Amino acid sequence: MRSDYDREGAIASLRTERRARFDIVRSSVLAGPLVSELESLTKGRPALVVVSPTVERIYGHGLRSILVSGRRRNLVHLIQTGEKNKSLESVAELLEIANKFRLSRDAMFVGIGGGVLLDIVGFAASQFRRGTGHVKIGTTLLAQVDAAVSIKCGVNIGTSKNLAGAFHPPERVIVDGAFLRTVSERDIRCGLAEMVKLGVAADSGLFEGLVRSGRILLDSDARDSDPARELVDASIRGMVGELAENPFEHDLSRRVDLGHTISPALEAATGYKLPHGEAVAVDVALSAVISNRMGILDDMGLDSVLELFRGLGIGTWHRLLEDFALIEAALDDAEAHRGRRLRLPLPLAIGRTVFVDDREDLPPSLIRESVAQLREASE
Amino acid sequence: MRSDYDREGAIASLRTERRARFDIVRSSVLAGPLVSELESLTKGRPALVVVSPTVERIYGHGLRSILVSGRRRNLVHLIQTGEKNKSLESVAELLEIANKFRLSRDAMFVGIGGGVLLDIVGFAASQFRRGTGHVKIGTTLLAQVDAAVSIKCGVNIGTSKNLAGAFHPPERVIVDGAFLRTVSERDIRCGLAEMVKLGVAADSGLFEGLVRSGRILLDSDARDSDPARELVDASIRGMVGELAENPFEHDLSRRVDLGHTISPALEAATGYKLPHGEAVAVDVALSAVISNRMGILDDMGLDSVLELFRGLGIGTWHRLLEDFALIEAALDDAEAHRGRRLRLPLPLAIGRTVFVDDREDLPPSLIRESVAQLREASE
Repeated sequence: MRSDYDREGAIASLRTERRARFDIVRSSVLAGPLVSELESLTKGRPALVVVSPTVERIYGHGLRSILVSGRRRNLVHLIQTGEKNKSLESVAELLEIANKFRLSRDAMFVGIGGGVLLDIVGFAASQFRRGTGHVKIGTTLLAQVDAAVSIKCGVNIGTSKNLAGAFHPPERVIVDGAFLRTVSERDIRCGLAEMVKLGVAADSGLFEGLVRSGRILLDSDARDSDPARELVDASIRGMVGELAENPFEHDLSRRVDLGHTISPALEAATGYKLPHGEAVAVDVALSAVISNRMGILDDMGLDSVLELFRGLGIGTWHRLLEDFALIEAALDDAEAHRGRRLRLPLPLAIGRTVFVDDREDLPPSLIRESVAQLREASE
Repeated sequence: MRSDYDREGAIASLRTERRARFDIVRSSVLAGPLVSELESLTKGRPALVVVSPTVERIYGHGLRSILVSGRRRNLVHLIQTGEKNKSLESVAELLEIANKFRLSRDAMFVGIGGGVLLDIVGFAASQFRRGTGHVKIGTTLLAQVDAAVSIKCGVNIGTSKNLAGAFHPPERVIVDGAFLRTVSERDIRCGLAEMVKLGVAADSGLFEGLVRSGRILLDSDARDSDPARELVDASIRGMVGELAENPFEHDLSRRVDLGHTISPALEAATGYKLPHGEAVAVDVALSAVISNRMGILDDMGLDSVLELFRGLGIGTWHRLLEDFALIEAALDDAEAHRGRRLRLPLPLAIGRTVFVDDREDLPPSLIRESVAQLREASE
């Protein structure tokens, strides 16, 4: 870090450089290790532990007994979650609690919950004292393989999803398979959908693993077994590999954006009744069909994508796909978000992706025909 | 940027590194150069130009005629300023405008106004698409030497100042002395107070310059003259020098925090009727007296600080200093904000600073006697 005056006529110049580094580890949250992890991360400073209503209901008592017992000064605070609470108001609530609790810069926010909770907690941490540390502990499969690993956080404003956001790397990510036991089968499938997406887009090994043993995650007693952990860890490693190359998204052509072009519009149009993972599955499937019709993905590739979704009991059809204006608007939004080029990820083969930049390569007829084909294939 | 697995037992690790670099340049905003600066920064993308009511009233017509004429697609948007509008609501307003305007990631926010406006615009830019570029153009002396150069931005929540914030380096800072002509003498003195602070804390050359010719900035016709520009540029370079060593404030002992320990409480207690610069001047003067009574700053040093303030017509007394509980609460807040140590900057000599870390070194009697001495010296 230094200042210099090498621009002709500049009064001064400032260079800044910011580095971060974090580990994703397995640890038992509901037993002692969480406390010692936090102690070492915060050097004994108190942590503000934020939990979702679900975590409070199922695990609140146990968490409190290890986190705030005896000399521990950690505070456990409950916030409301769900898409409508992913708001600036929730962030302000956490900032005010942290302020009242006199959290210092070297203290820590700890989020324990699903993706929405982690997004809110990360965003509050990014703003408190202009950046305080945080620990992410995902309690759903989707959160463990996706939101917890990401360095993105943010909230919605009105109906605009993630309109306010930041990149804020956590200090640590803790994965605990014990949480998965109580996740509903529908929510497990949402996590599996993101895992399939990653496999299709970037990681054929993960895809094969899901074909082989993905269903194990549907069995609540087996979700913390070694083979289940291996699948989750593989998914996390795949995600980290994608992030490592491009953490701040300077390159807007991102393979992990597969399944995230039409899906935001589907979610919004259902008032967020359609869960994120289900919307992503539909989008991945449609992308695979489009790719196949464009001659990019071969028939065997398309079949294996659709078969894997089918095998895991993940739906690939939504009636809103027949709302053509909705799809066109979603493509418009993607263009604006991705620096005025479409950058639509399409599978080239399992684990390999190409990007379509030009809207002209996606004529309305292609989209209509692809939707019709997907409808038929999904029946 | 790479991921690795070198922590024993870690599923994965992620390292991130983020670099930024910006120039602070003089340019004429109200003539053509602004347009070409923006064109080169945004590569022709539209900019969202945000102005304060004062800028709108005095310069709005001229700005619009150069920014949105003919083929330019820049949008000029007015937001309300003042401490009470430095809020999450103002940030949300800008994010919604940017979204409606379909600003892309490679577009630019441009803030033209005082410190409050620049703080709001910078914070909105830091959040839009998780970080969009912005250009800072300060129109007051205080904004030009302080807020515009800083990489900090943020807003208040309720009565908690800057409770939500971020570090977000701008793409460019443009300084235009033409704006200073219309700044009130009182506001010019607020800017001078921050310049004096920087001189006392870190830059004896700047201090001498202010002794020699600081009053030139009080003459509205001379504010854009060469000697005035030299003073402003010296102040900006001094500030950049401080920031360059410690842009993200990992070191919480900051010389530029001189005058920023008691002043936030004074401002808050007056409902922000007391301007920031005037509060800073009082705090700097009290710090100098305390330092003198502790045997750190010699009598000559103390006299020169008080004389410079007097010479520039800047008050160094406020009756709220006699509210001892207010001062104690301000010291408590500083400790919480500075990582649980006081880190009170005190002048050792002109341009040199020491830090007092321990509250025990500031017994109540010392503070009371210093307040009494300052009151007498300020009469």
